[in-house]
Formats: sequence, C-alpha cells, structure tokens
Amino acid sequence: MLKHKGCVVWFTGLSGSGKTTLAVALKKHLDRRGCHVFVLDGDNVRRGLCRDLGFSKADRDENIRRVSEVAKLFADGGLVCLTAFISPFRAARARAKRTIGPGRFLEVHMAADLSVCETRDVKGLYGKARAAAIRDFTGVSQAYEPPAKPDLTIDTARISVRRAVADVVALLKKRGVLAGRL
Amino acid sequence: MLKHKGCVVWFTGLSGSGKTTLAVALKKHLDRRGCHVFVLDGDNVRRGLCRDLGFSKADRDENIRRVSEVAKLFADGGLVCLTAFISPFRAARARAKRTIGPGRFLEVHMAADLSVCETRDVKGLYGKARAAAIRDFTGVSQAYEPPAKPDLTIDTARISVRRAVADVVALLKKRGVLAGRL
Repeated sequence: MLKHKGCVVWFTGLSGSGKTTLAVALKKHLDRRGCHVFVLDGDNVRRGLCRDLGFSKADRDENIRRVSEVAKLFADGGLVCLTAFISPFRAARARAKRTIGPGRFLEVHMAADLSVCETRDVKGLYGKARAAAIRDFTGVSQAYEPPAKPDLTIDTARISVRRAVADVVALLKKRGVLAGRL
Repeated sequence: MLKHKGCVVWFTGLSGSGKTTLAVALKKHLDRRGCHVFVLDGDNVRRGLCRDLGFSKADRDENIRRVSEVAKLFADGGLVCLTAFISPFRAARARAKRTIGPGRFLEVHMAADLSVCETRDVKGLYGKARAAAIRDFTGVSQAYEPPAKPDLTIDTARISVRRAVADVVALLKKRGVLAGRL
C-alpha cells in the first residue's frame, strides 16, 4: 500500500543548525507524494514523553534512548520517522542505530558551524548560554561530537532548504527506502 | 487520504483478559480495509522504551504515562493506535485520557473475571503469582480498579473475538473515527 519502507532519518547537529526546519520541509515534500511521515523533535518529545528529563549528559542519553525506542516503533509501523534532536554524543547515536536497526537508520549531519548557528540564534538560547543562564548548552558549555561516518552531511550555511530536501530524498531512493519514481 | 482519524483505543483489564488478542485481531480487520493501525503492548514497550521500569505502583504509573505519550504521538500521526496494557489504576488511565485528548480516547474494559483469567493463565503468571514468585501481580497481590464509565465493556468469557472486533468497529464508527462505509 505504502510507497516507502519504515525507516528513521536521524538529524543531528547544533541548536540552530536547521534540523527541525529541514525535517518539516522534508515531511511536507513527502506528504504531497503520498508518504506517511512523522517528525519527532523537542517540541513534541521534551514537553511530553521526556518532560521529566533535563540536559545533563545522563538525561540527554536517556532522552535519546527513549526517542530511539519511539522512532523504532514508528518505523515498525511503516512510517518514515524524522528525528530532529541535537543528540550530541556519538555513543548515544550508535545505540540508537542498534535499537532501530542499521539497515533503516540514516544519520544526517547538519554541519553548520557554531558561529553560524550562534549568529542565527533563533530562540535566543546562545545568548543565554554565553551569559551562563543555561548550563550544559551544546557547543558552549557541553561537547558536540560530530558523526565520524554520517550517511549524509548538509552544510546549511551553504545550501538551501530546497536543495537539502532533494539531497535527503536522493539518499532515501539510493537506499531503497523510497520508490524510485517518487 | 486515510479512512479514519487518529485516535487511541485503550484496552484495560487483567492479565489473560484478552487485550492483546483483541488488539491484534482488530488490527488485522482494519488493515484489510486500508486503515493504518499500530498496536502498543507489553511486547514492544516493556522490552524497549520501558525496560528500566518494574511493576511497583510508581513504575506502573510511569509506564502508563510513557505509553500514553507515545500513543498520543501515533494519534497525532493519524494512526489508529491500540494499547493493550493492564493499566490497573483509574487515576493513571484518567491522565492518559487527558494527555491524548478526551475526544480521541476510547476506553475498552476487558471485563473477564479473575477466575476466568486465572484458568486460562496463558503465560503461567498466575501460578507464579500465587506461589509468591511474582510480587505486585494485578488481581492477586495488587489492585485492579475497573473503569467507572468505559466507552465499551467486553466480557471475553461470553463473546467471541470476532464479535468483540465487530463491537469495537461499531464504536469507532459511532464516534466518527472510522468512515461509516468501512
């Protein structure tokens, strides 16, 4: 019935690197083509399932563990699940990949530089982090470990959202997730 | 595109009351009619998202809190989500209803008597509970609080699975979740 296989596209990158922007644009693109797509991000997870968690390393790891378990269920249900979380730690992402299954986990690194993200500062978070009003802020007071071998790297400072959507769609076709004709 | 609205059908009842059996049969029935259905139950939740939780009252409440948050996401994604958990406590189910939204939460009470469930004892759990090898076992060493006003009550000792499926489908049509022609 569906035009795709269940899978998870895992966006990782700094706050302000464009994860949710790209996930939402990709969902819109795929929805129009009859795909069934769901976006998991801070908005619908941090306020619900993970409202009991903070931003320490342990809490971030538990957040990513729960997100990966839920993303797995969506993939089991046949959906294309897009996750948009900073997910700064390599080991937590590796565990997510094992949970979901390597064959249906696609890691996309949103590789915008810290200076670019900080200039954007859409939510005013970098300003607060620099003023030390937010602790454990990735890139400022906590590490971001970039993927060693991502399935795709997107430099959002250089390419448009439209082009980024096309790049992810091409990846999904190449990996046999999406039917070639879409 | 879809033939239904996103919603959650929440099955509650003792171990052995037929929750998963009915959920799986209902999914099969609806799948054939082009609906998009997902079943959340102990098998895919207790071994994954909630593997850190036990069966004390506090842990059961947290289990049901997480299940309700995930079920909400599936309903947000437009799926018919069937949850099959004992969910023994009234307050936890009331909170699940608030989380998911009263208009798309349907509570189905699997009202088989304890003696019937214990006779079935599919997984051999009642035997272990009576031998005190399992603590906090619902109906034996922990309370089950039946729903005061369920949307539907099914006495699985008296009606067949087929009839139970028809009853739930009728409820879904009545509430406008499923298109009437299905």
